[in-house]
Amino acid sequence: MTFVPTARTLMPDLTPAQEIVLLARTLWREGYDDHLAGHITYNLGDGTLLCNPWLLTWNEIRPRDIIRIDLDGNVVEGEWPVPLGIPLHLELHRLRPDVQVAMHNHPRYGTVWADMGEIPPAYDQSSSIGGGGDLVLVDEYQGAVDNGSAAAKTVAAMGDGELALLAGHGVFVLGVTVRAVHQRAVALETRCRNAWMVRAAGGPTTGSLPEAWFARTRTGDGNGFRGFWEASVRAELAADPTLLD
Amino acid sequence: MTFVPTARTLMPDLTPAQEIVLLARTLWREGYDDHLAGHITYNLGDGTLLCNPWLLTWNEIRPRDIIRIDLDGNVVEGEWPVPLGIPLHLELHRLRPDVQVAMHNHPRYGTVWADMGEIPPAYDQSSSIGGGGDLVLVDEYQGAVDNGSAAAKTVAAMGDGELALLAGHGVFVLGVTVRAVHQRAVALETRCRNAWMVRAAGGPTTGSLPEAWFARTRTGDGNGFRGFWEASVRAELAADPTLLD
Amino acid sequence: MTFVPTARTLMPDLTPAQEIVLLARTLWREGYDDHLAGHITYNLGDGTLLCNPWLLTWNEIRPRDIIRIDLDGNVVEGEWPVPLGIPLHLELHRLRPDVQVAMHNHPRYGTVWADMGEIPPAYDQSSSIGGGGDLVLVDEYQGAVDNGSAAAKTVAAMGDGELALLAGHGVFVLGVTVRAVHQRAVALETRCRNAWMVRAAGGPTTGSLPEAWFARTRTGDGNGFRGFWEASVRAELAADPTLLD
Amino acid sequence: MTFVPTARTLMPDLTPAQEIVLLARTLWREGYDDHLAGHITYNLGDGTLLCNPWLLTWNEIRPRDIIRIDLDGNVVEGEWPVPLGIPLHLELHRLRPDVQVAMHNHPRYGTVWADMGEIPPAYDQSSSIGGGGDLVLVDEYQGAVDNGSAAAKTVAAMGDGELALLAGHGVFVLGVTVRAVHQRAVALETRCRNAWMVRAAGGPTTGSLPEAWFARTRTGDGNGFRGFWEASVRAELAADPTLLD
Repeated sequence: MTFVPTARTLMPDLTPAQEIVLLARTLWREGYDDHLAGHITYNLGDGTLLCNPWLLTWNEIRPRDIIRIDLDGNVVEGEWPVPLGIPLHLELHRLRPDVQVAMHNHPRYGTVWADMGEIPPAYDQSSSIGGGGDLVLVDEYQGAVDNGSAAAKTVAAMGDGELALLAGHGVFVLGVTVRAVHQRAVALETRCRNAWMVRAAGGPTTGSLPEAWFARTRTGDGNGFRGFWEASVRAELAADPTLLD
Repeated sequence: MTFVPTARTLMPDLTPAQEIVLLARTLWREGYDDHLAGHITYNLGDGTLLCNPWLLTWNEIRPRDIIRIDLDGNVVEGEWPVPLGIPLHLELHRLRPDVQVAMHNHPRYGTVWADMGEIPPAYDQSSSIGGGGDLVLVDEYQGAVDNGSAAAKTVAAMGDGELALLAGHGVFVLGVTVRAVHQRAVALETRCRNAWMVRAAGGPTTGSLPEAWFARTRTGDGNGFRGFWEASVRAELAADPTLLD
Repeated sequence: MTFVPTARTLMPDLTPAQEIVLLARTLWREGYDDHLAGHITYNLGDGTLLCNPWLLTWNEIRPRDIIRIDLDGNVVEGEWPVPLGIPLHLELHRLRPDVQVAMHNHPRYGTVWADMGEIPPAYDQSSSIGGGGDLVLVDEYQGAVDNGSAAAKTVAAMGDGELALLAGHGVFVLGVTVRAVHQRAVALETRCRNAWMVRAAGGPTTGSLPEAWFARTRTGDGNGFRGFWEASVRAELAADPTLLD
Repeated sequence: MTFVPTARTLMPDLTPAQEIVLLARTLWREGYDDHLAGHITYNLGDGTLLCNPWLLTWNEIRPRDIIRIDLDGNVVEGEWPVPLGIPLHLELHRLRPDVQVAMHNHPRYGTVWADMGEIPPAYDQSSSIGGGGDLVLVDEYQGAVDNGSAAAKTVAAMGDGELALLAGHGVFVLGVTVRAVHQRAVALETRCRNAWMVRAAGGPTTGSLPEAWFARTRTGDGNGFRGFWEASVRAELAADPTLLD
């Protein structure tokens, strides 16, 4: 079934499981496509989380594949195991009940800045929408390398922030909705791509946007841009009209 | 219906609304693809403009989605709202009745030069066709950041020119026809791409084309290259034969 | 009809017009894709040339679109006009009857080196197969800018060679067969791409291949690699099984 | 027939010939796509090897095209000739009976580091999974250029290692299974790509991953990551459901 949008109804209603699938599919197309690497969790607020399954890529999952897990990482519902990297998400949701959705992956340009161990400058409007405070660099491997303590350290280092580069690894993006995480993840990858291109060309280390612009965007909760998430959802539904079945 | 071109008839006749759709689709394929960012206006000369709608991407709009607005930005005809960034276009059409078509977006390479705050050298023939005077850099955020005065400042800074990089933002391309805007936008992105590649490789800051070449091309109105726009239109119609329905 | 290759018959028999179409299509996929820019001529040896038509892209032409012209550039057979840039080819075929096929375009990486006005080093095997003598840099605009004399100068500057970068413009590749031009054009773009990547990374200005390797490859006539051209032809026929109809 | 995975059965059972085809197809998509350049051998342990045929690309071969050869390079079974570069594989399998699968190609980023004659740093987790000891740089052309002695020199230079950059040429990746070679080849190209991007941006020459991480990953046999190979196989079967027929 082809969805036809109107100004009032920009996309079909989605269940949380469908939202996770569409976040995975849309971000895969934006460069969050490192094989089996990504995880998305969605806090249902009842002591359980929805989660993409281990063993399937973001490019192939469908709503029926989404699993439900408890805060210790046990599968409560679903036919698939939990992603290996889930301790980071469990730690996050325990300490930050304000966060509904958390996403980790190794995107094309975000990973390069994580590899360089530097925060990319934001040079333009497209690179800075979505808010979520400052982008934080977390060097998770510096102290200990076992998974639990690295997870706790990462969450602590983020403070109230909702965007992190994990040095030598990838990115971690949080939000109160799937829409907010999508908005921030797209802006983050745009920021990392444009900043890489400026840097490779020996361009300036700061852009021309005034500090007031950034001060304003940093306070955003990622939900303010109606239509942005909906447009990406429609593109996936057009590419695979059976996606919600 | 598949269109078969002949030397005499290179593409089907198009209405202005169809032309806007095809400009959006062809430029999306050329790298003008920043989600919901782009706007195209077409001055009908009767105090109203045709415009792509807010909330739909350039890759999904169809002729029935094009709206008509007055010079204050009110919708006169159509089912969709006006793009948020339209004040720039309104200001432009008020001050420059010679311009029929105006296009704004954040293309891949154009945005990188806007981020660097520099005019890219034009190194080759493909980078300099279409004319429109000098490429101008406008730092729209330097003075004030409210939308109206930035729009007026941008239009003033362009003078009689028809090509601008908006620092920390994107590009603005004008013309007396849709064809002219297409020609210039393709050349501009080629110029920005090739110049970025030369710069990233530490190449020379000037090319070997003689100044006389540029003097000649700068005077072009963008309409002289028969077949260029038509070829891009045919590629879109081949990709989606129902596009004009 | 799907063609099934065997070790003995690697592709269908092709007429010269079909060969031109397949050279255009395969090279388009290799980055020779600058809108209407390219021309291919095929010397029939009877005072006429086959040529791709003006006004159609390399990605859409079919065998029925190929035109036949005389050495003054008049159309002898066919429904389409002659490419604007054809004087370069006419000059070439007049002075070099040994050359059966000549190809000009503005490929992605080749154009960057033409813009830089430098010959890229050949760092690897894939960059140097096909032969054709030394790669020559021709600064066609330095002396005069009118088309005829630039064409004569370009042809003279190439001497007996069969590969040229045209400064601020594109490339020119010659051969005794379509197969040879394909081989050389693919190797040339690989050479330009890999050398750009080495240069952008600040790598060495010479590679580790011994001079004896290059001395040997330079003498090749481009016809020696059975299967290379055939594999690219099959890829196009698989992408569009009606291409030869 | 569409394959539907479950947590227990992630992909269909594959014959060795099907595994070779899928290794070729999956790696082609990862950038191992240099026309006719690649070869894969699979040691059956009975004095014969399975091998992809000469004259067909990795993107078109099907299980029926796989040939069987003896350790002198004679075809024992199949309708296609042996790849020209097979001496490297014959030498390898003679000296290293522990290696079941060997793969050579000229991937996009791996070839750039081979051209630069340098080992790329591994900056992140995705760049270092799969193990196989140290990545070795072999300058095969330095001493002699005839094929046999270059092959012996390459195999000798690798020692017990299973990953090599061949200077001015491409890469060579070994493993005890097809799965292991896939894992290592993907990690190697990721390593080469990310390191190139860091280098082009003037980033640090070492990353933040601790040496203990690398010490641990180097010992891997490439088989430990269940699901990684299977996910890539499913992507190919989805793209061409007739691939195993």
